[in-house]
Amino acid sequence: MDAINTTIELTEAERIDRLRLIRSDNVGPRTFRSLMNHFGSARLALERLPELARRGGAARAGRICNEEDARTELAACKRFEVSLLAPGEAGYPPRLATLDDAPPLLGVRGTTDSLMRPMIAIVGSRNASGAGLKFSGQLARNLGEAGFVIVSGLARGIDQAAHRAGIASGTVAVLAGGHDRIYPPEHEELLAAIIAAEGAAISEMPLGHEPRARDFPRRNRLISGASLGVVVVEAAHRSGSLITARMAAEQGREVFAVPGSPLDPRAAGTNDLIKQGATLVTEASDVIHALEPIMERPLRLPLGEGDSDPLPSDPQGDERARIVNLLGPTPILLDDLIRMSDTSPSIVRTVLLELELAGRLERHGGGLVSLI
Amino acid sequence: MDAINTTIELTEAERIDRLRLIRSDNVGPRTFRSLMNHFGSARLALERLPELARRGGAARAGRICNEEDARTELAACKRFEVSLLAPGEAGYPPRLATLDDAPPLLGVRGTTDSLMRPMIAIVGSRNASGAGLKFSGQLARNLGEAGFVIVSGLARGIDQAAHRAGIASGTVAVLAGGHDRIYPPEHEELLAAIIAAEGAAISEMPLGHEPRARDFPRRNRLISGASLGVVVVEAAHRSGSLITARMAAEQGREVFAVPGSPLDPRAAGTNDLIKQGATLVTEASDVIHALEPIMERPLRLPLGEGDSDPLPSDPQGDERARIVNLLGPTPILLDDLIRMSDTSPSIVRTVLLELELAGRLERHGGGLVSLI
Repeated sequence: MDAINTTIELTEAERIDRLRLIRSDNVGPRTFRSLMNHFGSARLALERLPELARRGGAARAGRICNEEDARTELAACKRFEVSLLAPGEAGYPPRLATLDDAPPLLGVRGTTDSLMRPMIAIVGSRNASGAGLKFSGQLARNLGEAGFVIVSGLARGIDQAAHRAGIASGTVAVLAGGHDRIYPPEHEELLAAIIAAEGAAISEMPLGHEPRARDFPRRNRLISGASLGVVVVEAAHRSGSLITARMAAEQGREVFAVPGSPLDPRAAGTNDLIKQGATLVTEASDVIHALEPIMERPLRLPLGEGDSDPLPSDPQGDERARIVNLLGPTPILLDDLIRMSDTSPSIVRTVLLELELAGRLERHGGGLVSLI
Repeated sequence: MDAINTTIELTEAERIDRLRLIRSDNVGPRTFRSLMNHFGSARLALERLPELARRGGAARAGRICNEEDARTELAACKRFEVSLLAPGEAGYPPRLATLDDAPPLLGVRGTTDSLMRPMIAIVGSRNASGAGLKFSGQLARNLGEAGFVIVSGLARGIDQAAHRAGIASGTVAVLAGGHDRIYPPEHEELLAAIIAAEGAAISEMPLGHEPRARDFPRRNRLISGASLGVVVVEAAHRSGSLITARMAAEQGREVFAVPGSPLDPRAAGTNDLIKQGATLVTEASDVIHALEPIMERPLRLPLGEGDSDPLPSDPQGDERARIVNLLGPTPILLDDLIRMSDTSPSIVRTVLLELELAGRLERHGGGLVSLI
């Protein structure tokens, strides 16, 4: 199935159901996908949620988002000119839709056209040097002229320099909070300029959500996930941009880094990335040449609805206890768990889903799971 | 045959003969090796030189260095405390001896012990930045502490910074001119400090030879050839240090480069080297880790005396004309020439040697030859 050519459009009722599901307790993007795979529709999943959580050993029933709250959120989004889009809908960045943990509903503000074009992320330190800011601007301008939409995080420093230079050709800001909670606040004007120039802003968080520290790494996966690759311009050791680079690598995106003097601490992170295999960038053509072959490949959605068993298998006898027993605080590969459990993959997945909805399971990406 | 373990010592007569041979017209390091391979001794080669050149079509007889001139040079070297050493003798850098075009006699001044230790070259622009000079010093100091002798070209900028920081642990200056023609002249003092601290200087040029522009690239092959690898610190596009890096790669030496900002023209060359596969260096351990596996491998001399046919085959009938006819101004691979000539390799080599001694053949390295 090719995500790019299969443009779907949700009905109002289905959008409400999906919004209720993703806004319910213990349902993240991965659990959402498991539930959709199992039940085939958000409506059926919502109906079965309390029972599954109880079987997973939930101490108390998790909150399920009711229809009224979902309708209220949707109405507020409309007033704020934010569309809540599902993967596969026009305006949902096609590459973002290919992620295992793609947001089930993405808040999109601005021109959706910009979100359907090839994107490249430019990120870097907030405390950037003059040379770093200048280079980011040059690179964003040249990549924009070559047809790429510039993606970044609207932060101070490198992010804003890349956005500003990308305004003319189209740029997308990825937010860590709700669309009405811009961080840093002084960049509201920059965001307005981005939107006015046929750019866009995206967020998976509800309106009113104030961004907290832990929301930024989570947001960073959207920056890399929506893009063909990530260019890191100036990053000290252990900086946030390196998290974006790591996520990009995990997502199979290209990682690019701009070199700097070994005596410049702001280049320590980017030089390290190059040592680890990132492509060295001194000009836009370095990025373009590396991405050309990738752009020619068709996109693939992860296993979608209907590709898995449509209904959950009911664990029999001691199967559930046996699977829970194999789990612990140390992450284990799902594949190993299935082999060791001596039951069917579908039963293991069902038990994991129950544990997840009971708030007892953590998914780590790369197919790793652990008990909380 | 392991060059490191086979330490030879020439007799005085053999050293005089070899000096005469390498100081004769149209005899470079490669021709010298061919002649030694063919005739087994410098004495026999000297005797046959006029006849070979005549057969190669020399318009007039090339000058052959006479014994008196050779003795005079050797005596001057002694007064200047310069030893003329052959590959395999103690004090001749073992890795340098493995080159196809290793100097048949190398002028060595200073402490020969330093020339037998593992070497690393540090080179870069004469017009270096403060950061570049500082980094070169740090790197040379740390590599020196790790047991490496620092090799460089005694130039202004990066070279002198590396030499200065390498004095404490041992450093070797590779000269483009004779030992009594130091360039730049203001570095005579630096060279004296290097020698006084158990370092050394090497040159393949006779005393009194004033270095010309074309001597520097030729000298650069000795910098890389004597070393396990070459670190390039700051180099603009098309700078001399890049020639050293290219020679290092051709010689199978490791190439290292120090990154810099894309906006710094002095980093353009080094960033390019990294794009082409050079190892990025921000600290000494980057160099050390890359060299460790190489240092464990035994050294191999190129095919030495006695490995080839001891006497030249005499070309018969039209063989010589046929081979000359296959040659032209466009370089051709020796192997291709042998195949196309339809004669024995030994006959082709003999004809090439004759042409070389007649001043009509150019050898390009990589087994390529052309008519001049």
